[in-house]
Amino acid sequence: SSDSTPIRATLFPGDGIGPEIADSVKQIFKAADVPIEWEEHYVGDQIDPRTQSFLTWESLESVRRNGVGLKGPMATPIGKGHRSLNLTLRKELNLYANVRPCYSLPGYKTRYDGVNLITIRENTEGEYSGLEHQVVRGVVESLKIITRQASLRVAEYAFHYAKTNGRGRVSAIHKANIMQKTDGLFLKCCREVAEKYPEIKYEEVVIDNCCMMLVKNPALFDVLVMPNLYGDIISDLCAGLIGGLGLTPSLNIGEGGIALAEAVHGSAPDIAGKNLANPTALLLSSVSMLRHLNFNDKADQIQSAILNTIAEGKYRTADLGGSSSTTDFTKAICDHL
Amino acid sequence: SSDSTPIRATLFPGDGIGPEIADSVKQIFKAADVPIEWEEHYVGDQIDPRTQSFLTWESLESVRRNGVGLKGPMATPIGKGHRSLNLTLRKELNLYANVRPCYSLPGYKTRYDGVNLITIRENTEGEYSGLEHQVVRGVVESLKIITRQASLRVAEYAFHYAKTNGRGRVSAIHKANIMQKTDGLFLKCCREVAEKYPEIKYEEVVIDNCCMMLVKNPALFDVLVMPNLYGDIISDLCAGLIGGLGLTPSLNIGEGGIALAEAVHGSAPDIAGKNLANPTALLLSSVSMLRHLNFNDKADQIQSAILNTIAEGKYRTADLGGSSSTTDFTKAICDHL
Ligand SMILES: CC(C)[C@H](C(=O)O)[C@@H](O)C(=O)O
Ligand SMILES: CC(C)[C@H](C(=O)O)[C@@H](O)C(=O)O
Repeated sequence: SSDSTPIRATLFPGDGIGPEIADSVKQIFKAADVPIEWEEHYVGDQIDPRTQSFLTWESLESVRRNGVGLKGPMATPIGKGHRSLNLTLRKELNLYANVRPCYSLPGYKTRYDGVNLITIRENTEGEYSGLEHQVVRGVVESLKIITRQASLRVAEYAFHYAKTNGRGRVSAIHKANIMQKTDGLFLKCCREVAEKYPEIKYEEVVIDNCCMMLVKNPALFDVLVMPNLYGDIISDLCAGLIGGLGLTPSLNIGEGGIALAEAVHGSAPDIAGKNLANPTALLLSSVSMLRHLNFNDKADQIQSAILNTIAEGKYRTADLGGSSSTTDFTKAICDHL
Repeated sequence: SSDSTPIRATLFPGDGIGPEIADSVKQIFKAADVPIEWEEHYVGDQIDPRTQSFLTWESLESVRRNGVGLKGPMATPIGKGHRSLNLTLRKELNLYANVRPCYSLPGYKTRYDGVNLITIRENTEGEYSGLEHQVVRGVVESLKIITRQASLRVAEYAFHYAKTNGRGRVSAIHKANIMQKTDGLFLKCCREVAEKYPEIKYEEVVIDNCCMMLVKNPALFDVLVMPNLYGDIISDLCAGLIGGLGLTPSLNIGEGGIALAEAVHGSAPDIAGKNLANPTALLLSSVSMLRHLNFNDKADQIQSAILNTIAEGKYRTADLGGSSSTTDFTKAICDHL
C-alpha cells in the first residue's frame, strides 16, 4: 500500500453503461492501492443556468478544485436550449488539448499490427466555434476560428509530450492549401514551436493524404497535432485501426494543469445495466490520468494487468468476441495485479 | 470498328508523368476502336487574365464545347497571384459533383477485400469558399458556405447515381451535431431528395464515426454523399483501403452535362519521363468518361482488360510491386482487349 496522502479526483460515471465501467475503475484502483479518493458527480436532471447545460456548476467546481477527473460516456439529453455536455466541459474547463494514444492491443487482432500513434487535438476552437448563421434563405455559413494563442498552446503541448515521452516526430495535419489563413496560421505556430525542439522531427501533412497514409501504413506516423475537427476525424480513424473507441483512452488537458480523462465511446443504452460493457477505454483513460499525476508505477501496473488480461483472451467482453461479464473481466484484471 | 461519328473530347495530359499516362489512354482507346477524337490542351506558361490561372481560356472553352474531357495530374505552379488549377476547373466549369468509385482490384492484395464504395463529393462550396480573413492580429477565420441549391444538386446526383447503378444505399456524411446550420442544411436537402427515392435506403453518419467504420469494415457502406472537405478526406481514405490514388478513378460532373474525368494523384516529377508511371488511375477515369458517354461496351471491354492485366500480375508497374514499364503495361492491356 502507498504512503502518499490521498488525492481527490472527480468522477463522472456518466450515463448508460457509465456506472458499470466506472465501478470497474474503482475496484481496480482499490485492488492496486491507488491513493485516490473519488468525488462522484452525476449529470443533472435539469439545466443549470450557470453552465447552460445539464452539468451542474458544482460538478465543474469539483474538477477545478481537484485539478483532475475521470469521465464516463454522457448522453446529451434531447431537447433545446442547452449546450452539449462534452462541449460545456471543454469550454468551461478550458480543456485545450485532447490526447489520444492509440496502440494495438497485444493478442487482439485487427487488420493492423504494431500501431502506436498519439493524436493531439486542439479542443477549443476551429470548426467548433459555434458561430453560424443564415446569410440569406438557403445560404448558411459556419465560421472556423483559429487563433495564434490556442495554436501555440496545443503545439507546445504536442512537442513537450513528444519530448517527455521519447517520441521522435510530430506531424502537423492541415489543409492549408485550401484554408491558407486559418490552417496557415496553425502551421505557422507549429513551425515556431518546432524550432524550440530541434531534437524532434517536424513535418506537415495534408489531411486527405494523412488519412490515406494512415490506412495504408500507420507506422509512417508518431505524434500528430491538428486543429479541432481534423483531430475529431483522425482520432476516430486511428481508433478504428486497433478495434474502435471501446479500446482507446483519451485525456483532456486544461489551463492550469487540469486534466480530465474520458472514455470517448457512447453510453450504449442497449446493454446498460446488463453487466456486458467493456470498461477498457475508461480503464486505459484512468491510466492516462495516473500518468498525468506522476503515479507512473501504479499506471504501469494497472496497464499491464489490463493488457495481459486481454492478451490471454480467457476473459473478454462480447465486443471483443468473448463472453465475459464486465465484473468477471474486472476481476481477471484484479487477479493480474 | 465502330460506326458512330467520332466524339470530340478535351485531353489535358498535365504535368510530370501526365503525358506518359495520357499516351497510355490514347493507345488503348485506339486499340479498342473507341470513336473519340482528342483535342489536346496544356497548362499555359503564364497567367491567363480571363481564368486568373495558368489554365488558358481556350482550354476551358474546349471542355465547354466538347462537354467532356480527361485530365492528367497538374502541378500548380509556384508563385502568387493565381488560382489553383484544380479549383479553377471546378469553379469555371461548375463541376458540382465529384464521383470516385473505389473497389478492390482483383489480385492486388491490400488489408481489405471486396471494397466497393462510391464517394460523391460536393465540389463547389463548403470549406472551399476561399472566404477567409484576419479578424484581429492572431485571430483568423474561414467561412464554410453551404447552400440549398448546391446541396440539393449533389444529393440529387447521388440518388440518381445509386438508382441507375443498382446501388441500394446512400449515406450522407456530416458533422451536424457541431455545425448544425451548415451541415444541418446539407442533411435537410439530402432528406428531401431521399423521399423521392423510396427504393434507396438512406442514412446519416457523422464523419468521425464514418472514418472509424470505414477502416473497421468498409462493407458497411455503399454510396456516400457529402460536403466538399469531408469528400476530400473520405475519398482519399477510401483510396487508401484499396492501394492509393494511383488506382482510383475520378469523374467530375458539371452543370449542363459536362463531365471531366481525372487522375487525382500527383504529377510525380521524380519519375517523370522515365517510362515508370502507373497509368491505372487515368485509365479507369477514362472508363468513367466512356460510361458517362454511354459507351458502356467499350467501357466494359477496357475496364476488363485493365483489371485482368493487373490480376494476372505479370505486367505491373513498380508502385504495385512489379517491374514493368508504362509502355509494357499498356501493351499488355491492349493484348487483353
Ligand atoms: C460528441 C461530439 C460532440 C464529440 C466531438 O465532436 O468532439 C465527439 O465526437 C468526440 O470526439 O469527443
Ligand atoms: C489539390 C487539392 C486542392 C485537391 C482538393 O483539396 O480538392 C485534391 O486534394 C483533390 O482531392 O482533388
